[in-house]
Amino acid sequence: MTEFDAVWLNAQLATMTENGQPYGTISDGAIAVKDGLIAYAGPKAGLPAFDALSTPLYDVAGQWVLPGLIDCHTHLVYAGNRANEFEMRLQGATYQEIAAAGGGIASTVRATREASHEHLFTLAKDRLNALQNEGVTTVEIKSGYGLDLASEQKMLEVAALLDEHHPISIQKTFLGAHALPVEYKDKADAYIEQVCQMLAVLQQQGLVDAVDVFCEGIGFSIAQSRKVFAAAQDLGLPVKAHAEQLSNLGGSALVAEFSGLSADHIEFLDEAGVAAMAKAGTVAVLLPGAYYFLRETQLPPIALLRQYQVPMAIASDLNPGTSPFCSLQLMLNMACTLFRLTPEEALLGVTRHAANALGLNDRGVLAAGMRADFGCYAISQPAELCYQFGVKSLRQLVIGGKLCRLAV
Amino acid sequence: MTEFDAVWLNAQLATMTENGQPYGTISDGAIAVKDGLIAYAGPKAGLPAFDALSTPLYDVAGQWVLPGLIDCHTHLVYAGNRANEFEMRLQGATYQEIAAAGGGIASTVRATREASHEHLFTLAKDRLNALQNEGVTTVEIKSGYGLDLASEQKMLEVAALLDEHHPISIQKTFLGAHALPVEYKDKADAYIEQVCQMLAVLQQQGLVDAVDVFCEGIGFSIAQSRKVFAAAQDLGLPVKAHAEQLSNLGGSALVAEFSGLSADHIEFLDEAGVAAMAKAGTVAVLLPGAYYFLRETQLPPIALLRQYQVPMAIASDLNPGTSPFCSLQLMLNMACTLFRLTPEEALLGVTRHAANALGLNDRGVLAAGMRADFGCYAISQPAELCYQFGVKSLRQLVIGGKLCRLAV
Ligand SMILES: [Zn+2]
Ligand SMILES: [Zn+2]
Repeated sequence: MTEFDAVWLNAQLATMTENGQPYGTISDGAIAVKDGLIAYAGPKAGLPAFDALSTPLYDVAGQWVLPGLIDCHTHLVYAGNRANEFEMRLQGATYQEIAAAGGGIASTVRATREASHEHLFTLAKDRLNALQNEGVTTVEIKSGYGLDLASEQKMLEVAALLDEHHPISIQKTFLGAHALPVEYKDKADAYIEQVCQMLAVLQQQGLVDAVDVFCEGIGFSIAQSRKVFAAAQDLGLPVKAHAEQLSNLGGSALVAEFSGLSADHIEFLDEAGVAAMAKAGTVAVLLPGAYYFLRETQLPPIALLRQYQVPMAIASDLNPGTSPFCSLQLMLNMACTLFRLTPEEALLGVTRHAANALGLNDRGVLAAGMRADFGCYAISQPAELCYQFGVKSLRQLVIGGKLCRLAV
Repeated sequence: MTEFDAVWLNAQLATMTENGQPYGTISDGAIAVKDGLIAYAGPKAGLPAFDALSTPLYDVAGQWVLPGLIDCHTHLVYAGNRANEFEMRLQGATYQEIAAAGGGIASTVRATREASHEHLFTLAKDRLNALQNEGVTTVEIKSGYGLDLASEQKMLEVAALLDEHHPISIQKTFLGAHALPVEYKDKADAYIEQVCQMLAVLQQQGLVDAVDVFCEGIGFSIAQSRKVFAAAQDLGLPVKAHAEQLSNLGGSALVAEFSGLSADHIEFLDEAGVAAMAKAGTVAVLLPGAYYFLRETQLPPIALLRQYQVPMAIASDLNPGTSPFCSLQLMLNMACTLFRLTPEEALLGVTRHAANALGLNDRGVLAAGMRADFGCYAISQPAELCYQFGVKSLRQLVIGGKLCRLAV
């Protein structure tokens, strides 16, 4: 008899694998877990015999089981908030007036630099808890509000602490090239040199899983982004970019040139860029929260991404300036409502394709050998997770084989 | 010494009264409750002496206290869901194909007619719980998925049961004139006669607090709406309308003519309609969830509403067809982001002005004599409730003087 740590029965599995069914569905399915991994995911009829007396059984009574959700683009370690700036803007203040009042990204950098590890940890933990209560089991966290070595290190150390002390699995991304710190005003090239040096130090400390840049007219140029990517490549680190959000600089093609993980935002991406991503296997990470919050009107090139079969991921972009939304389920709705993704595309975007975007091949689908990360939902069909919002449907969440406590 | 049932100290009060401060703020405030009402709300220094040994004290340590939130327009008693239709549409199905597959409002009417009181109650209770966890203490619920006497009665009876068994205070609105039931195809005038007869029966059973109509090209005409309003007037019931959502029929002016409570949606409202509402004291209820979900582009006439000082309320319009969002906090963000309301306007829209929209003068502000409905939030300023979304900030909720249990 096979030994399992626990078995789930009477589930409808949305495996998100390519098994010929929408959502990779397996009706009357079962999942068995052993040593933190999925030992079996398939029809109940195929479940190997096991010792029912010594194995905990969960009868989920026809609920849907999906892979743990993956938020592959967040900035969720930060201090302060920008409610004041939000209010000023709606009262008619100009960007100059807001900047003069200490607003903008500089205010988040200031607050994050001043915050202790403990304070940042507490704030971030609340955000992770909110995501976990929606079924999220893996979260990428970027640095980029420190913009000096000590503060970038602090942000990534907090991310590492969260990975250790919170059930959610964390991926740490170095985003030193997020904005130009005030100390380097008019000296962007010098700052980029500094970013490359910081990267080497932080990588040695084991704090970096990937490297990101904000490649944009108001961020860093292609030449500057290339320097950061070259430094990452030298260290064997994968790259990604905030690219083509406000204009078409070619950041996505640059990511593709470095066989990078993902190009994110990409509202202004053109066909050549899409083709380059397709060839390189780079994932398109769509961020509908920022699109909504900034009231953008230029849609990402969804039709081209489909045509070139570029995998699309969906993420929250959780950050205090342009996407203050700590909810991946809201992003599922926005991806469908605003970007017209199908519910299946949207759900692939927070499971299999989000795992691709992080370069993780041990999660994102329900299949034997994968991490045992999955959620049980009281829904009639997977599309419900995209369609409605507000009433929680998650009934059980398993991360790394362990049942998590959930908010009621 | 004054006798209180409980006292809250060290609060920042957003009283939402007109006291010369934004949000009617009182710093270092106190609230005292007696017999379900607010006995005192003001500066701590002005709190009457009371017996500290026999009175429970809550020190909220600088948290913000706001009036209980009011969702003044919902359809939250219904069965079934429309995820299938949502998915079909995103897969490219036409409205004809969706109707042929049994979609549209007819599917909700079918499911609601078939559902038992118990089933409808359970579904609605989950929705009320989600709203309560955001700080909502009063909810309006409309009928309108029954469209025959027995089914409309069932919906309103469920709303009455919720009022009795759930902490949230419920207002019941009869919306028989929501859509034409299949039995009355091409016989709208005859159905309106039937609606007027149903209204008389339901009013006698104490099931109706107000009367609503869907006045629209795809709903009912001005003449038909007028008939329903006249029947309501004969019974002494206040009226309101779904008006000017897709075209400018003049439904808002009709509500004003009947000195009605509110005109809701009103994207296509013109200046004459705004002026009529201002004169009649009719509230403008804005429904950004439906605007977002239907991807409308015509904004409600916010500038005119401000100019004519028409009070604006914000509601969820929670319903399975056009606003499947069980969250008033999401609506606060959408009111600001999509309609460009200031946070103060948005928060007035779910407190004082929402109470106006329901004709309730015993709630919506923090003041002596009002119902003791209020929430304590761990926020740095009221605008935070509009700006960010996802991490719960509600720490305590009091409804009718009683502390409610909240989800973690
Ligand atoms: Zn970002
Ligand atoms: Zn409505």
